[in-house]
Amino acid sequence: MTQRVPARVGDPVEAIETPALVLVLDAFERNLDAMAAAAKAAGLRLRPHAKAHKTPAIAHAQLARGAVGVCCQKTDEALAFIEAGIADVLVTNEVIEPAKLQRLARAARGARIGILVDSLPGVEIASQAASDAGVTLDIYVEVEVGAGRCGVAPGVAGALASHAAAMPGLRFAGLHCYHGGAQHKRTPAERSAAIAGAAEGARAAVASVERAGLACAIVTGAGTGSWPNERDSQVWNELQVGSYVFMDADYARNVPGPADLRFEQSLFVLASIMSLPAADRAVCDAGLKAFAFDSGLPLVHRRAGLTYAKASDEHGTLAVQRGEPPWLGERLWLVPGHCDPTVNLYDWIVGVRADRVETVWPVTARGALG
Amino acid sequence: MTQRVPARVGDPVEAIETPALVLVLDAFERNLDAMAAAAKAAGLRLRPHAKAHKTPAIAHAQLARGAVGVCCQKTDEALAFIEAGIADVLVTNEVIEPAKLQRLARAARGARIGILVDSLPGVEIASQAASDAGVTLDIYVEVEVGAGRCGVAPGVAGALASHAAAMPGLRFAGLHCYHGGAQHKRTPAERSAAIAGAAEGARAAVASVERAGLACAIVTGAGTGSWPNERDSQVWNELQVGSYVFMDADYARNVPGPADLRFEQSLFVLASIMSLPAADRAVCDAGLKAFAFDSGLPLVHRRAGLTYAKASDEHGTLAVQRGEPPWLGERLWLVPGHCDPTVNLYDWIVGVRADRVETVWPVTARGALG
Repeated sequence: MTQRVPARVGDPVEAIETPALVLVLDAFERNLDAMAAAAKAAGLRLRPHAKAHKTPAIAHAQLARGAVGVCCQKTDEALAFIEAGIADVLVTNEVIEPAKLQRLARAARGARIGILVDSLPGVEIASQAASDAGVTLDIYVEVEVGAGRCGVAPGVAGALASHAAAMPGLRFAGLHCYHGGAQHKRTPAERSAAIAGAAEGARAAVASVERAGLACAIVTGAGTGSWPNERDSQVWNELQVGSYVFMDADYARNVPGPADLRFEQSLFVLASIMSLPAADRAVCDAGLKAFAFDSGLPLVHRRAGLTYAKASDEHGTLAVQRGEPPWLGERLWLVPGHCDPTVNLYDWIVGVRADRVETVWPVTARGALG
Repeated sequence: MTQRVPARVGDPVEAIETPALVLVLDAFERNLDAMAAAAKAAGLRLRPHAKAHKTPAIAHAQLARGAVGVCCQKTDEALAFIEAGIADVLVTNEVIEPAKLQRLARAARGARIGILVDSLPGVEIASQAASDAGVTLDIYVEVEVGAGRCGVAPGVAGALASHAAAMPGLRFAGLHCYHGGAQHKRTPAERSAAIAGAAEGARAAVASVERAGLACAIVTGAGTGSWPNERDSQVWNELQVGSYVFMDADYARNVPGPADLRFEQSLFVLASIMSLPAADRAVCDAGLKAFAFDSGLPLVHRRAGLTYAKASDEHGTLAVQRGEPPWLGERLWLVPGHCDPTVNLYDWIVGVRADRVETVWPVTARGALG
């Protein structure tokens, strides 16, 4: 089902067929460098989240800048990165289907693999799979620290960690404390308050683990919207930032803190206007199958007078407001509302620099739902 | 980037790995049969929209029941069906990129291919590509009949048709009159009023074409939500229904007319609960990358006491209300909010009958954005 490449290396940007997922490599690399330098300066491990990009070439660029490994969210996503040579992957999710655990355990013969647990059965089934394969899986206890999703209460983290540490095939590696909702709070004060609450939970979980007589080597979490807060808390020692490589329209709505890094928008959907049915309306070739819409509509980048107003399956309807009229075939650079699920719609990322296609990367883990 | 199959033919349904896109074949075939019989009874051509399923095996099942061909929405989607042996494809969209028109024109050496136009440049560029390839493309003039998207005003349809008819490599085939918004109006009266307006526009466009001295062989349009209205109007003679094969949560919110066919929900996302962090909350393994959310949240099918409440990238958070408590590993049948863009997230459709996997179909045109 892999679709044709929308461009060839060396092509001018104007020759990219639309819609295409286009990465501005200069901005992307500045984002990579800035985050790597910030993590290093803070003495924190950087384990970027590969669910954002699903692209081994990007993971390798992150590792080359000092990342300790990557996070994945799904078993088959993790396997795609391991097959591409990434030797240290943390699946930031509960995995309880035996078939999936067996695949992960087999892969752990050649890579370091971690998973999350938030239940006793989750520990048992992981131990069984690891023992059967003769490997050791790293186990992170997921702690509920405000996200309202998975995870145990902080006070029971120690008990679950002890259980995991005692089971064959498992190694207790640390705590996963992630508060995703904090990423998208708009003001620094709101994000700071949310992560202060999460830090309190994380500290209590660490204490619970230590009371159980275990060392808590890693406390992992954080994301692009809030990582300065996790950094400053002194609780986390590993950052899982993912979206910083691309950014999106939703992150752009966050008001940055005064000292926050400003990551650049590097990811775009390149679209073409293919219908001009009325003076106040233009229609482009990128709709519901070209963007994820959970975080709002795409934004038209640096082109005054056009607003992406409505999506149908394969059309994007633009309101024409003022200024230079759009023209048939005009190409638009659109900023996705939410980068992660938008990337998941594409087979290829077209990397451009100086108006040329420099690379076309396969989005190898696209669609890796299992 | 094709992902592994989530099941094998002959597997019991319980062995399907989640998340998976599952088709209940009995319901699906009843939908196919009912629509084919209704179109035949009305003396209408049936050209189902393949953007809904993107799956050649389903297109062949539609043709076997009398469909004249399929609609596609994108060039590469059309090519995927042509390569799979579908010999008559109408691209219900403007195509203006020369590279795409060249691909379509080359494919027209072995298949009948139609495209839409709503501009003079659209006609010129299609003529050039068809002439260069030594083929004839069918040209349908798209008429704006209420959708507020692409298309010319009814009164100028004749002029554009005449222009197309006079150009080398093109054959004027008819009019495309589609009012997508009418599909999702909730009451029969609202849908009837919307299609009455569309029919008025379509009639005016036919008159414009006939005044230009051309025959208007085909008036094509309609969709699953409104086709009885198009049928009864006596204006359309070809139906483009797509979603009827699957249905979804949004169509289920339509109040059917007294004599309307009731298509059955045949398409589901099979998911698993992998975390039970609180008495009022369960978390499953299907989130923003497993469903399209433009038409609302998925519905939990025939399982009281659970509601799909919130999605993050790879998690679906369920509210637990009452009744039987959920259990770790429990499998949920979820009805997508919007079938078309949900199908586009999957590489495989798992067809089941009598609790067994009967077939696993590749979603060949998944991701065919170009």
